[in-house]
Amino acid sequence: MVLDPPLASPIVGRLVVIGVGLIGSSILHAARARGLAGTRVAYDASPAVRERVLALGLADLVAATPEQAVRDADIVILCVPVGAMGAVAKEIGPHLKQGAIVSDVGSVKGAVLSALRAHLPEGVHIIPGHPVAGTEYSGPDSGFATLFKNRWSILTPPEGADPAAVAKLVELWSAMGANVETMTADHHDLVLAITSHVPHLIAYNIVGTAADLETVTQSEVIKYSAGGFRDFTRIAASDPTMWRDVFLNNREAVLEVLGRFTEDLIALQRSIRWAEGDKLFDLFTRTRAIRRSIIEIGQETAAPDFGRAHD
Amino acid sequence: MVLDPPLASPIVGRLVVIGVGLIGSSILHAARARGLAGTRVAYDASPAVRERVLALGLADLVAATPEQAVRDADIVILCVPVGAMGAVAKEIGPHLKQGAIVSDVGSVKGAVLSALRAHLPEGVHIIPGHPVAGTEYSGPDSGFATLFKNRWSILTPPEGADPAAVAKLVELWSAMGANVETMTADHHDLVLAITSHVPHLIAYNIVGTAADLETVTQSEVIKYSAGGFRDFTRIAASDPTMWRDVFLNNREAVLEVLGRFTEDLIALQRSIRWAEGDKLFDLFTRTRAIRRSIIEIGQETAAPDFGRAHD
Ligand SMILES: NC(=O)c1ccc[n+]([C@@H]2O[C@H](COP(=O)([O-])OP(=O)(O)OC[C@H]3O[C@@H](n4cnc5c(N)ncnc54)[C@H](OP(=O)(O)O)[C@@H]3O)[C@@H](O)[C@H]2O)c1
Ligand SMILES: NC(=O)c1ccc[n+]([C@@H]2O[C@H](COP(=O)([O-])OP(=O)(O)OC[C@H]3O[C@@H](n4cnc5c(N)ncnc54)[C@H](OP(=O)(O)O)[C@@H]3O)[C@@H](O)[C@H]2O)c1
Repeated sequence: MVLDPPLASPIVGRLVVIGVGLIGSSILHAARARGLAGTRVAYDASPAVRERVLALGLADLVAATPEQAVRDADIVILCVPVGAMGAVAKEIGPHLKQGAIVSDVGSVKGAVLSALRAHLPEGVHIIPGHPVAGTEYSGPDSGFATLFKNRWSILTPPEGADPAAVAKLVELWSAMGANVETMTADHHDLVLAITSHVPHLIAYNIVGTAADLETVTQSEVIKYSAGGFRDFTRIAASDPTMWRDVFLNNREAVLEVLGRFTEDLIALQRSIRWAEGDKLFDLFTRTRAIRRSIIEIGQETAAPDFGRAHD
Repeated sequence: MVLDPPLASPIVGRLVVIGVGLIGSSILHAARARGLAGTRVAYDASPAVRERVLALGLADLVAATPEQAVRDADIVILCVPVGAMGAVAKEIGPHLKQGAIVSDVGSVKGAVLSALRAHLPEGVHIIPGHPVAGTEYSGPDSGFATLFKNRWSILTPPEGADPAAVAKLVELWSAMGANVETMTADHHDLVLAITSHVPHLIAYNIVGTAADLETVTQSEVIKYSAGGFRDFTRIAASDPTMWRDVFLNNREAVLEVLGRFTEDLIALQRSIRWAEGDKLFDLFTRTRAIRRSIIEIGQETAAPDFGRAHD
């Protein structure tokens, strides 16, 4: 998979990325590959990460402080864990120029919008966002330019947001290969609760349950993981800080969806107990259709077993 | 991945596979590729499948009836859904020669052992088995010779089983590239409940929950599936007949493990409700270690995102 060739002229003058992990470094990769910004500026709280950004040539300028980073910025994208958004907004708020756009990539949108609003001054455009793309790895070395290609990126502009600022971000994400969709922060948080947050939670949970069983050893769990379990362990290997923050900040929607999941699971458990084969068969048939649709719209490959090489 | 070159002489004279789906056809592929059998014989209840087996050249002989198939068989491997094992055993029982070995590949072992014992005559060696390998596809076209390579294959010989018969099956599975382990049927059913059956159940369940939400449309679930959900849909696309049979036949162990899973999930839910970030962080950190071990012992690739191509 490759990105389109570089643009004739950049979309944005000064693009600032704060937090250079998987997502931040992928944005910088894509911006470099396609010439999206006049100047790419990066800042990360960790000195080791800042050095790595320099070594990888991900940014034109690496700032020593958040204040330095955002001076004269046209677009700032916060790529830190959800729980750190407020602190970063507080640090950069006083140093943003009028008309600057501040966005983010956090996996939760309602809580981030509140945090940004609390700390950013009037005259700055707050347009939160969330690219629905990722891997289980983190850090500045895990990013790549095509991470967002053919993936959806969601923007959640608050009521009254400046249309020109929204259009600029749509242009930026589109140029990174993403399809852009707009919705409210609340709806985003509900959609992601079912498509991402609760799936992660139950993956973490089943791996935890397996580790704690007394009747099956951990080495047996590991040996026989190819029966389905290993697919859950990939998800349950995702960054603990990021995911703690997701659950603490999207509590309501997660608890709502989790309630439905548990209710359904208990009905399923009852069907097993009472040997209601037809009910099991019906559910197992219904779920196949969703898989097919996901493959059809190109959000997944049809290769067996996720294309793990077998030939 | 490739198998070793063909053997100088076959391990078994007449090898019979009954039920030529994903697993049955993979056994026939591997047996052909490595010259494991003097004669490969196949039977399937479906005439269309029998024709396909001929067209693909998977067997030397395709039988018109189970009775024809097992005549003079040295090893018979039943590769039908767990719920069909008893019926097949009943059909072939009277036509087996003394000293024949009857094995199977069913995902549940206790119930299959009982079914085989009920219908097979004295003098036939019953050695149930289960290769822990698979994909979400089924049917005679979905098999391939390397499916079992570097995977574990479990044998569950009942007490008093003939050591020579067990050794023959170990030799056969090893020649197909598998690592072979022996355990009791009961222990198998508990191990697989946690490493395969309950993971499948919760995958089916979350996909069902998503389909039924009124507040999030099905097309949104499909669009934003890259956030984690799509990994569950692969598992939830597995064959409904096979999985119905698994849950009906491994009820006790599944309900036991499911009880633990639900208990743990409710504790996790409580941690979210009460914003116990430390508890979440601890669990999310603990689960990473298991992933690492699975990659280390070669049951998974370390490529990000299951090696879905991104560059
Ligand atoms: N990973 C995914 O799959 C994914 C997908 C979509 C969206 N997201 C969202 O994207 C954001 C970043 O995730 P990621 O996976 O890229 O994380 P990551 O790889 O862990 O990177 C986060 C980076 O931010 C730095 N950081 C933390 N607090 C900071 C602060 N106050 N000021 C400046 N830098 C700070 C971290 O430094 P330290 O290491 O020193 O803490 C780290 O280098 C999160 O909000 C997440 O919800 C993630
Ligand atoms: N799929 C996996 O990942 C996996 C992994 C390990 C073990 N297993 C076990 O392997 C066995 C087969 O699974 P599979 O995935 O290979 O299934 P599959 O692809 O659905 O194939 C099963 C085949 O058996 C045939 N069949 C059904 N009842 C029969 C009967 N009474 N006599 C003769 N043939 C009959 C079916 O024909 P029809 O289509 O006409 O019904 C079908 O062609 C199951 O017991 C399963 O638990 C599966």
